[in-house]
Amino acid sequence: MLAAEVKGKMINIVGEGNFDDSKTGRLVYSYDATPNFQSLPAAVVSPRNTREAAEIVRICNEHKVPIVPRGSGTNLCAGTCPTEGGIVLLFRHMNKIIDIDEENLTATVQPGVITLDLINAVEAKGLFYPPDPSSMKISTIGGNLNENSGGLRGLKYGVTRDYVMGLEAVLANGDIIRTGGKLAKDVAGYDFTRLFVGSEGTLAIITEATLKLIPIPETKKTMLALYQDIESAAKSVSKIIANKIIPATLEFLDQPTLEVVEAHAKIGLPTDVQAVLLIEQDGTPEMVNRDIERMSAICKEENAVSVQIAESDAQAEALSSARRTALSALARLKPTTILEDATVPRSEIANMVRAINNIATKYHVKICTFGHAGDGNLHPTCPTDSRDKEEMERVEKAFEEIFVKAVELGGTITGEHGVGVMKAPYLELKLGKEGIAAMKAVKTALDPNNIMNPGKIFAKDSRKRVVITR
Amino acid sequence: MLAAEVKGKMINIVGEGNFDDSKTGRLVYSYDATPNFQSLPAAVVSPRNTREAAEIVRICNEHKVPIVPRGSGTNLCAGTCPTEGGIVLLFRHMNKIIDIDEENLTATVQPGVITLDLINAVEAKGLFYPPDPSSMKISTIGGNLNENSGGLRGLKYGVTRDYVMGLEAVLANGDIIRTGGKLAKDVAGYDFTRLFVGSEGTLAIITEATLKLIPIPETKKTMLALYQDIESAAKSVSKIIANKIIPATLEFLDQPTLEVVEAHAKIGLPTDVQAVLLIEQDGTPEMVNRDIERMSAICKEENAVSVQIAESDAQAEALSSARRTALSALARLKPTTILEDATVPRSEIANMVRAINNIATKYHVKICTFGHAGDGNLHPTCPTDSRDKEEMERVEKAFEEIFVKAVELGGTITGEHGVGVMKAPYLELKLGKEGIAAMKAVKTALDPNNIMNPGKIFAKDSRKRVVITR
Repeated sequence: MLAAEVKGKMINIVGEGNFDDSKTGRLVYSYDATPNFQSLPAAVVSPRNTREAAEIVRICNEHKVPIVPRGSGTNLCAGTCPTEGGIVLLFRHMNKIIDIDEENLTATVQPGVITLDLINAVEAKGLFYPPDPSSMKISTIGGNLNENSGGLRGLKYGVTRDYVMGLEAVLANGDIIRTGGKLAKDVAGYDFTRLFVGSEGTLAIITEATLKLIPIPETKKTMLALYQDIESAAKSVSKIIANKIIPATLEFLDQPTLEVVEAHAKIGLPTDVQAVLLIEQDGTPEMVNRDIERMSAICKEENAVSVQIAESDAQAEALSSARRTALSALARLKPTTILEDATVPRSEIANMVRAINNIATKYHVKICTFGHAGDGNLHPTCPTDSRDKEEMERVEKAFEEIFVKAVELGGTITGEHGVGVMKAPYLELKLGKEGIAAMKAVKTALDPNNIMNPGKIFAKDSRKRVVITR
Repeated sequence: MLAAEVKGKMINIVGEGNFDDSKTGRLVYSYDATPNFQSLPAAVVSPRNTREAAEIVRICNEHKVPIVPRGSGTNLCAGTCPTEGGIVLLFRHMNKIIDIDEENLTATVQPGVITLDLINAVEAKGLFYPPDPSSMKISTIGGNLNENSGGLRGLKYGVTRDYVMGLEAVLANGDIIRTGGKLAKDVAGYDFTRLFVGSEGTLAIITEATLKLIPIPETKKTMLALYQDIESAAKSVSKIIANKIIPATLEFLDQPTLEVVEAHAKIGLPTDVQAVLLIEQDGTPEMVNRDIERMSAICKEENAVSVQIAESDAQAEALSSARRTALSALARLKPTTILEDATVPRSEIANMVRAINNIATKYHVKICTFGHAGDGNLHPTCPTDSRDKEEMERVEKAFEEIFVKAVELGGTITGEHGVGVMKAPYLELKLGKEGIAAMKAVKTALDPNNIMNPGKIFAKDSRKRVVITR
């Protein structure tokens, strides 16, 4: 509970209607898309502009009230679960596209803009904002910035971070700062733009962003390659890149994933093969045709049992949509779905998929794997039931081994989902004690009272995942 | 002078031959490419590997000895001038390309590798490392990383930062940390990779980097558009981008620059026009041809008096080389050459060039302007004589006004040269007191004894450029 004095000050700033400490309001924002994490905030506060956001932060700093900034809460690392209480700072009013600048190829947006709304607005002007997290229909740009979201187009186009040119942000002390701008080049001072992107709200509250746009590719084609063994699919991926073709997306789905995706989407995906590569290329028509032809040839050389090229935009769209529903489809299997994103150098994909399957067998758990093969960004996913404590323990052990293996192969514990609470215990595997100490020094310097999304990124205990029962 | 104890310890680590505190040795490293800055270091130390570098840093931290990491010293912001004494840490031994990984499209290098050597090695394998600072024939990758160097290809391909996937770095306490990896996606922890890139050695010493490579464009074409007024050239730039064409380079040279470049390069550049755009496009042959045609049409529509397309690779190369020699050519005019890099949103280029010319007239100084028009990254350059105190004062005032104007137009005080000592007094213009305070907090957190390239980025006095006479 917030002290009456604090509550009064906050209502003075945002108005009665934008401060909610009702049981219902708090319950709604007590969890995000991450299974097994829930904790009630003391209140939900919705600032109407940056000034209000800064004033709220200042009060929180004075009274040591934790702040959890939140968009739509679609993250999968419990990054927006208010595990330490305090307030949820909601950006429902700050949801404007401020401008789309066709001369400088930028979009300036508030954090509450829905990702797909921005993508659509930009595409209407013949421009392109590539980052496309699977949750883009409901995720917000603010959430994407805080988590440095990836997506299917990461291989060719990069991730959210690669499209951020400038930020307006509120620091823990309530100061409002601006980084970067509509500038292709800017080396004036430390790169706080990119330090803040992906820092999960632990260093600053992002209140505005200037994003880079590019011309939209003229055309796009989609193909599907089917394999009777995972190895051949992985080899195709490596060979495509080694042949200097960078497709727009290069997605991998294993047989168990295919089965559930097809059951969900019903678009005629084969379910009797061991693996599928879903490949898209975009660009000029000649380039797309040539690349698709060359990739078809490579897939066949690597023993694809079938290579199909989508015959229409509708068919291509259906394939790509089906892939995007993988999580929802898998989530229907069991009460709890744990989706991870261990990532390896792309040359290690076959090794990683093999290791995941061995680990699943070892711990008698079902793990379906799909993901962005071109990035080495895999999503091993476990349909399970958090009420079954014994199984959950095996699941936890399996994922711990998966993370260890990923790091061993030169990879990382999270490619695009963020650390949050969920991955915090494993961060040391990747960064070492020294790396974490340096991060903590920066965190403490910018947020001495630890009010900015506390409990995230930095683990209380190392190597042990904290499971809070919903 | 270093205490005998410190000197002894350092020699123990790197060996007699890699520790130089002779007058000559110190003199050689007392300045960099920046005019008017000189200061003797106490010694020049050349570690042979990361472990030695870390041990040297640890000793410096213990004894509060400043460290200035240095590649070839080609920077233009006095970033490697040892203004506070201490040691220059030279990477002449750590100059290996560790690997070029064709499957993951990465190059792993030590900081002492010459930029052009890397570019050539990579191109020999059909791959491409785009960052191309004008100094690339002698600059090192380590220097490029510390300054986040740009170059001519920034518009289409981005800058050094955009090609860094991972680092090995030594912190002020001597800890060795690793960030990122051969990973297209990695969100495990704060983005120290990009925080360190461009931090000018003030936060960490970079000892290894994993760089992103891309397939080399198949073909390239170069064109030259001549204008009798600057306005038309600037309008052509905006119109090209607004037409959704992103050329590989889009360079601007004004008449005074053209004249000196032609006198130096003697390749038949016109000197009787007010402005030139030098444009390159790369990609598939069809795309390049189409874009060059469309850009020619746009330039003509915007009153170019002549548009020429280079007829051979040799002619194209001559044009592009001539552009790269602009600084050397300008440097022949007068004893002192002050080259700046005020940068604006590209839509403001015409306004900025006009402002620069007005400011030059106001202060009776000669300012030639050239630069990366596509990026809005201009290089107003003043041939002057540092011995003429009265003129130097006017030059300083003129540049201060240029920086103020750039920031006013939504720009920045430095697009690609870095802050160093040179721009430090102006940094507050861009970042405000609050932004600088936040940067200082991070600096102090990671380097409490202020041994990492002290005196750089953070100004002693605001808004006043410190001129040290050589």
